[in-house]
Amino acid sequence: MKIYKAHILFTKVKDKFEIIENGYIAVENGRIEGVYAHLPGHLKGVEIVDFGDKLLIPAMNDMHVHAPQYRNQGIAMDLELLPWLDNYTFPEESKYCDTKYAERMYRRFVRDLWRFGTMRTVAFATIHKESTRILMNLFKEAGMGALVGKVDMNRNCPESLAQSVQEAVKDNEELIQEFNQQDSLVKPIITPRFVPSCTPQMLSECGRLAKEYNLPVQSHLSENVGEIAWVKDLEPESRSYGDAYNRYGLFGQTPTIMAHCVWTKGSELELMKKNGVMVAHCPTSNFNLSSGMAPIRSFLDEGISVGLGSDISGGHDLSIFRMLVYAIQVSKMHYCTNKNMPFLSLSEAFWIATKSAGAFFGKVGSFEQGYDFDALLIDDKELNHDNYSLLHRLERYIYLGDDRQIQHRFCRGIEINEPQL
Amino acid sequence: MKIYKAHILFTKVKDKFEIIENGYIAVENGRIEGVYAHLPGHLKGVEIVDFGDKLLIPAMNDMHVHAPQYRNQGIAMDLELLPWLDNYTFPEESKYCDTKYAERMYRRFVRDLWRFGTMRTVAFATIHKESTRILMNLFKEAGMGALVGKVDMNRNCPESLAQSVQEAVKDNEELIQEFNQQDSLVKPIITPRFVPSCTPQMLSECGRLAKEYNLPVQSHLSENVGEIAWVKDLEPESRSYGDAYNRYGLFGQTPTIMAHCVWTKGSELELMKKNGVMVAHCPTSNFNLSSGMAPIRSFLDEGISVGLGSDISGGHDLSIFRMLVYAIQVSKMHYCTNKNMPFLSLSEAFWIATKSAGAFFGKVGSFEQGYDFDALLIDDKELNHDNYSLLHRLERYIYLGDDRQIQHRFCRGIEINEPQL
Repeated sequence: MKIYKAHILFTKVKDKFEIIENGYIAVENGRIEGVYAHLPGHLKGVEIVDFGDKLLIPAMNDMHVHAPQYRNQGIAMDLELLPWLDNYTFPEESKYCDTKYAERMYRRFVRDLWRFGTMRTVAFATIHKESTRILMNLFKEAGMGALVGKVDMNRNCPESLAQSVQEAVKDNEELIQEFNQQDSLVKPIITPRFVPSCTPQMLSECGRLAKEYNLPVQSHLSENVGEIAWVKDLEPESRSYGDAYNRYGLFGQTPTIMAHCVWTKGSELELMKKNGVMVAHCPTSNFNLSSGMAPIRSFLDEGISVGLGSDISGGHDLSIFRMLVYAIQVSKMHYCTNKNMPFLSLSEAFWIATKSAGAFFGKVGSFEQGYDFDALLIDDKELNHDNYSLLHRLERYIYLGDDRQIQHRFCRGIEINEPQL
Repeated sequence: MKIYKAHILFTKVKDKFEIIENGYIAVENGRIEGVYAHLPGHLKGVEIVDFGDKLLIPAMNDMHVHAPQYRNQGIAMDLELLPWLDNYTFPEESKYCDTKYAERMYRRFVRDLWRFGTMRTVAFATIHKESTRILMNLFKEAGMGALVGKVDMNRNCPESLAQSVQEAVKDNEELIQEFNQQDSLVKPIITPRFVPSCTPQMLSECGRLAKEYNLPVQSHLSENVGEIAWVKDLEPESRSYGDAYNRYGLFGQTPTIMAHCVWTKGSELELMKKNGVMVAHCPTSNFNLSSGMAPIRSFLDEGISVGLGSDISGGHDLSIFRMLVYAIQVSKMHYCTNKNMPFLSLSEAFWIATKSAGAFFGKVGSFEQGYDFDALLIDDKELNHDNYSLLHRLERYIYLGDDRQIQHRFCRGIEINEPQL
């Protein structure tokens, strides 16, 4: 048991912050025993780490990111989706047949997630089993949580990135045997790239794997208008893009997260709600690729779970704090044209980034009893140059801060040090 | 004369970058004598400062920022415009009757402009002459360029921020006498806050001062729909919000810059074009205050000049590099709904931030002969971990970088050191 003392801020519910000035968090076996304004009797004598005048908040969760596109972060933003895929994304992913290259890049990727305070990640890797294993082991070595997907694809992509269904299944099963352990911080996630790059047989094997091994699923959904039309052509019997996944057991039959959902509405939205599918909202990517602005307020109103994703390299920024600001801004542009869609408050956006997203990993993202102690200590001295309230200090950190102010990082109770490059 | 050697990138025209690998810039009396791929004969023997494998680019220009709102940067973003003005903006500006407070905050403001590589600024101060003088002197002390406006307002504002027309004119004239010197880097700019906060008499005296002393003008224009309707009520004889300024000699009669122009179109757009009024595009502010998305592509197509503004504290970010990214993203959302409005390319956005904006200060923002040497040296070692082209290195710096990578800053040929707090 250990106790941390600091200014504690978190969100149990979306509508308000819990704020405890000079509060205490007791942590036992990686989980939170309790949060207290005053030290209770039963904890007298337990070691206290006093962080002083700093902010202790839940760590960030990145719910959608392409690890192998890390080299391409922040380049070629002048291109549209298709030439960008053909000239940058696919050629880069093809390089990951080289495990040396993969390790060099993935080390930097994991180190930078750490820098920005992201302690849990849902990541796409590539089709390559060996490189995917390297990424999973790097997360393990770092002590950071991750669901990592070996990508499955067998059509509408370069030869170098297509696998037969048989190979894909074999490689998945090998990684599943190795990594699918109860309570491990790093686990596999079934990852068909998206409907256009997977034949019906591939999708149906993905669904079978998810069910057989009780594994979560991730993919892309309704990112842009052209893609939706394409899926309609490829899967004419499906009522919606989401329904296409559903028909293969890839839409909530096991815990499922779908990136983007910019254009999700009507029966697709109903199906997401019914099946409990989570949205990974990736606002910078949706801007950069001219995809559009996802209706997050509608999702919240419908009770659909939402998390935030950096979506490197469609997105250019690995900071989930920055995504949180962008998510608010996107919601303000909806509000600007429709005053019946209130924009996201700071507490709502924070809750989305922490507790709402964290639920995909278990009890993660809040400081309630029994939650994993995933936390960041923010030393905002440099930003706190006048008499700001604790809530304004957090708001300023979210809007103005960066990795420099993150002084300590914890994942499931363990302090995480800088991963080696 | 001095010569700087580095990788040189700048934009003469909006459609493409000039890129000179290991090039030379010769600087004489603060101005650029020439840019060379190879050292020409007539410069043999001149001292060369070799920066090595780094990027040398024009410095940034912030075309709209409220210096006294610096304390409020990144707070109260959950509020809408009116309660935000009443509860945060106006109370904060009122504090600037205290010159000690003003100096403490303005020092931090100028230091942070420096940090983010902004060497020229068009700033609103407050109505207070003494505090405005302090801000102007801090810019002078730092060696950074600025047009600083003592704000004029006499209605629809708290008592503590209203001045009589007579007082306002007297205070303006005193600052004009003191600071309006040929070739000075720091000069006054006539600054009626906006139509709703100035009576016709105040506007007309502002127009007179601008004409009499040949001074530039700044204000706000067509930021949000409610404001436009309000101006229509207040100035029923004007054909547009812009025309209201025009009728008082505040719309291009001397060089004029108008912040926002989110909803500018039709006759207002025609008038801006005819009168050569510049737009200060403030994309983060327009997001944060739910104002909307300015049609920058239309302005460029019409030949209207555009620069970028941080608009602290409607905007939350002082980095003009970050504004440049946001400007591209805004244009992509217009493109998303109207494919006839191509989004801004990187070179266009860079040109807007540098040469286009810089024209408001004279020959500023390019590395062409005769331009002031306003420059930043970017050491992007940490971002340049693979084989990136020079253009991709610049793009990555713009999208991912921050103040840490700015190694040297120059304004009119002088290296600018960190201003003291």
